[in-house]
Amino acid sequence: MTAYDKLCERFRRISTLQDARGILNWDMLTMMPKGAAESRGEQLATLEALAHEAMTDPRVGDWLAAAEASPPDDAGHRANLREMRRLWVHANAVEPKLVEALARAGARCYQTWVEVRPGGRFEALRPALSPVLALVRESAAAKAEALGTTPYDALIDQFEPGLRAARVAELFAPLRERLPGLVDAVLARQAAAPARRPLSGHYAIDAQRALGLDVMRLLGFDFDRGRLDVSPHPFCGGASGDVRITTRYREDDFASAMMGVAHETGHALYELNRPAAWAGQPAGAARGMAVHESQSLFVEMQLFRSRPLLGFVAPLVQKHLGAQGDAAWTGDDLFAHFTHVRRSLVRVDADEVTYPLHVILRFELEQSLIGGQLELVDLPEAWNDGMARLVGVRPPDDRDGCMQDVHWTDGAFGYFPSYTLGAMIAAQLAAALRAQWSDLDARLSRGELAPIAEWLKAQVHERASLHDTDDLVRLASGAALSADALLAHLEARYLG
Amino acid sequence: MTAYDKLCERFRRISTLQDARGILNWDMLTMMPKGAAESRGEQLATLEALAHEAMTDPRVGDWLAAAEASPPDDAGHRANLREMRRLWVHANAVEPKLVEALARAGARCYQTWVEVRPGGRFEALRPALSPVLALVRESAAAKAEALGTTPYDALIDQFEPGLRAARVAELFAPLRERLPGLVDAVLARQAAAPARRPLSGHYAIDAQRALGLDVMRLLGFDFDRGRLDVSPHPFCGGASGDVRITTRYREDDFASAMMGVAHETGHALYELNRPAAWAGQPAGAARGMAVHESQSLFVEMQLFRSRPLLGFVAPLVQKHLGAQGDAAWTGDDLFAHFTHVRRSLVRVDADEVTYPLHVILRFELEQSLIGGQLELVDLPEAWNDGMARLVGVRPPDDRDGCMQDVHWTDGAFGYFPSYTLGAMIAAQLAAALRAQWSDLDARLSRGELAPIAEWLKAQVHERASLHDTDDLVRLASGAALSADALLAHLEARYLG
Repeated sequence: MTAYDKLCERFRRISTLQDARGILNWDMLTMMPKGAAESRGEQLATLEALAHEAMTDPRVGDWLAAAEASPPDDAGHRANLREMRRLWVHANAVEPKLVEALARAGARCYQTWVEVRPGGRFEALRPALSPVLALVRESAAAKAEALGTTPYDALIDQFEPGLRAARVAELFAPLRERLPGLVDAVLARQAAAPARRPLSGHYAIDAQRALGLDVMRLLGFDFDRGRLDVSPHPFCGGASGDVRITTRYREDDFASAMMGVAHETGHALYELNRPAAWAGQPAGAARGMAVHESQSLFVEMQLFRSRPLLGFVAPLVQKHLGAQGDAAWTGDDLFAHFTHVRRSLVRVDADEVTYPLHVILRFELEQSLIGGQLELVDLPEAWNDGMARLVGVRPPDDRDGCMQDVHWTDGAFGYFPSYTLGAMIAAQLAAALRAQWSDLDARLSRGELAPIAEWLKAQVHERASLHDTDDLVRLASGAALSADALLAHLEARYLG
Repeated sequence: MTAYDKLCERFRRISTLQDARGILNWDMLTMMPKGAAESRGEQLATLEALAHEAMTDPRVGDWLAAAEASPPDDAGHRANLREMRRLWVHANAVEPKLVEALARAGARCYQTWVEVRPGGRFEALRPALSPVLALVRESAAAKAEALGTTPYDALIDQFEPGLRAARVAELFAPLRERLPGLVDAVLARQAAAPARRPLSGHYAIDAQRALGLDVMRLLGFDFDRGRLDVSPHPFCGGASGDVRITTRYREDDFASAMMGVAHETGHALYELNRPAAWAGQPAGAARGMAVHESQSLFVEMQLFRSRPLLGFVAPLVQKHLGAQGDAAWTGDDLFAHFTHVRRSLVRVDADEVTYPLHVILRFELEQSLIGGQLELVDLPEAWNDGMARLVGVRPPDDRDGCMQDVHWTDGAFGYFPSYTLGAMIAAQLAAALRAQWSDLDARLSRGELAPIAEWLKAQVHERASLHDTDDLVRLASGAALSADALLAHLEARYLG
C-alpha cells in the first residue's frame, strides 16, 4: 500500500466513526431518555477522541508528507489529499483531552438548554454554557496558532475552509448597508397593501407530518435512506446514506413546520447526493457549511417561498389540512404569508429580508465572546441592544433572546456567518438556473421539483469537496461569491 | 497509576464503546431506514474492532500479569480482575479481522432475515447465513484452543462463563426425561377442563402500548432511563442507564405483546439496577445470560402468569382495551389463556411447559452445526424432524420453523441453553421468595410488584458479576442450580 492508500483507509475509518456519532447525536436529540445525557456525553466524547487519535497518530503525518512528496496524478485524489492535510492541521492543533472535555461539556449544556430555555432566564443556562465557552476559547487559541489566524478566524475555518472574519465582514458590508433601508421600504409597501389572511386554525400533528412527507417526496427524498422526526430544534443529521431530518410542530401553525421540512430536505439532498465513488473520503464530504446552507435556502427561499410553487402547494396543504381548520388558502395567501416581513425576535422564524441582520448580530457577538471583549454575564444586554439596533426590536426575555439558538450550547461558534453566505450562494444558483431554464416558473407552478434537485445534484452535490468554495460557487453559478444576487433577489421579490 | 487502575480505565472505555454499539444496534432494529444496513454494519464492525483493539493491546496483557502478581485487597476488585482476565482470553483468541467480518456478515444476514422470513423459504436466507456460520465456526475453533474446550463449549462460554455442553446436558436431563410425560398429563387434564374463553377481539395498537407502559410502571421501570418501542423481534438493548425494550403488536392479540413487555422489563430492571459503583467495569456487568433470562422469566412466568397477579391485571386490561373488543376478561380467563399448553411451532409464543423442549432442540442442532455434523442445507429437515420428535408437531414451512429466531442471523450460537437455565433459576428464586414472604400471593393480587423488584435488585441485580453463576444462584435462592424447582413449579401450577 502507498502512503496515500494508507491515508484513504485511515480516513474511511474516521468517517465511519463520524457516522456512528451522527446517529448517536440524532438519537440524543430525538429519542434518548433524559437521564441518559451524561452517559451519552461519554459515548460521543469517546468516539470523538478515537477519531481524533486516528487522525493524530504520528504515522498520519508521515503518510501525508510522503503522499505530498509524490502526489497522485488524478486531480480528484489531489483534492482529497489537500482536504486530508487541512483536517489534519485542525486535529493536531488541539489536545485530545480538550476535544473530549468540549464534547462532554457540550452534551451537558445542550441538555440544560432544553430544560431551562422555557424559563427564559439566561442565568439558568450560564453555568452550563460557561465551561463550553472557556473550552472553545482554548481550542480557538490552539487552532489560531496552527493556522496563523485570529482565534475567531480559526473557528470559522472549521465550518468554512479558508474564510476569514475580515472577508465575511466585507461580503456582509453591502447587506449591512442596504438591508435596513430595504426593510423600511418593504414595511412601508406592506403597510399600504391589503391585509393578509392569517393562516390561523388548529392543525393536527399527524396531518402536518403527512404534509411534510409529501414535501420531501416532491423533492425526491429517498425514504429508504432517511427519516423525518421531531426535535426541539430542527436539524439534518444521521450518517452517510442514512440522512435524518427533524422538525417541530405547533398545532396552531402548520407553516413553520412545513417550511422547516423543506429547508432541512435541502440539506438532506446534499448529503444523500454526495458522490458514492468518494464515500468515506474527505473529498466526498460536503464543501463547507455555507454551501450546505445554500442548499437548504435554495429549497426554502428560492423554491418554496416563490409564488409559482406556492400555487402548487396550496391545494396540497388543503388536501392534508382541509378538514383541520380554515385551510382553503390560495397561492396568493401563502405567498403573502411566506414573504411577510417584520422586525421579529427569533432567527429561525425570521423572513429572508431581516434574516441577515440576525446573523450579523451573532457574527459580531461571537467575535467579541471569543476575543474576550464580551463575557457571558453581559451577553443578554449586548444581545438585546444589538437586536434593537440592527433589527429594530428588543427581546422581552432571554427565551427568544440570547437563549434561542442551539449552536453555542455545544460549542459551534463561528457557524452563523454560513447562513447568510448560504443565502447569497442560493440566490446566485437560482439566478443561474433561471438564466438556463426560461420555463422555470411554469415548472414550479406544476410542482416539478425533481429535475431541479437533479440540477443541484450535478452542479453542487456531486462536486462535494473536489473544489474549494470560491471555485465551486463560480462553477455552479457562473459568478464570484458576492451579495449582489441576494440583494437583487430581495429587491425583485419584495419591491418588484 | 497502578496496573489495575490502568485496566479499570481501559475497561471503562471498552464499556463506553459497547454502550455506543448498544444504541446503534437498537436503532438498527427499530428506526433505521433499510437502505442503511450496509453502512450500519460498517459502523458496528468498526466499533467492535476498536473495542477489540483496546482489549488486545499488548499492554493489557502486561497490566493483567502485573495486577495478578499483587492482587487488590478487596474481594470485589479481585472479582473484577478475574472478569477482566476472562474477557481478555476471549478477545485475544480471535483475530480482529474475524471479529469485524462476523459483525458485518451478521448485520447483512439480519437484514436479509427481516426481508425473507415472511416468504418462509430457508433457501432465501441460507446465502446470508452461510458466511455467518462459517465465521462463527472459525471463531469457535480459535476460542476452543484458548480455553481448552470444544468449539461449541467455547461459544456457550461467551454467554455463560464456565458452563460446558456436558453440564448443560446433565442439567437438562431431568427436563428431557420428565417433560414429555408432563406435557401429556397436562394436555389430558386440559382436554377434560371446561373450554377457555378465547381472548379474541380487535385491539388498537395505541391502547396496547398504553397497557404495556402500565405494566412497566407496575414494575417500577424508570422512563427517564429507558424506552419502549417496536421491532420485528422483541429485545432489551440500549446502553448503561439508557435501557430500551421493544415489543411487537398484533391487532388481533393483545396478550403476546403485553407478556412480551413484562418479559423484557425483567431484563431491563436487571440492567437498570446494576451497581453504579461498578459502572463501566466487568464486575458491574450482568452475570451471564442464564441469570439475565432468569430475571425476564421471573417477571413473566413467576409473576405475570400467576393467578393472583392476573386477578389484578384483568381490570387493567379492561381499562385500556375495554372499548376495543370483548375485553371483559376475568383473572380466571387470563390465567387459562396464559397457562394454556399446546404443542406449538414458535418458541417465543410457546407455553412454559413445552418451552424447554424447543430449547433442547436448538441446543442439539447448534452442537451439530458448530461441530460440522450438520450443514445448513440440511437444517430445515433436521429442525422439522426434531420438532416432531421433541414437541410433537411438524412445521409446515420454514417461516415458523428454522427461520423463526433472530439469534443465529447475527452469530449468537450458544445462547439458547440460557433460556431454560434462566427458567430454572427463576423458579428457584420464586421458591425462595415464597418461603420468605408468606403473603406473596396477597401482594400479587394487589399488584404490589415494586417491592418484589426491590428484592430482585438486592438478591440478584446489585450482585452483578461479583460472584460466579453457581455462587450467585446459591446466595440468591439458597439452593444449588438444578431443574428441581422448575419441575416442582410446573407440576404445582399445571397439575396441582
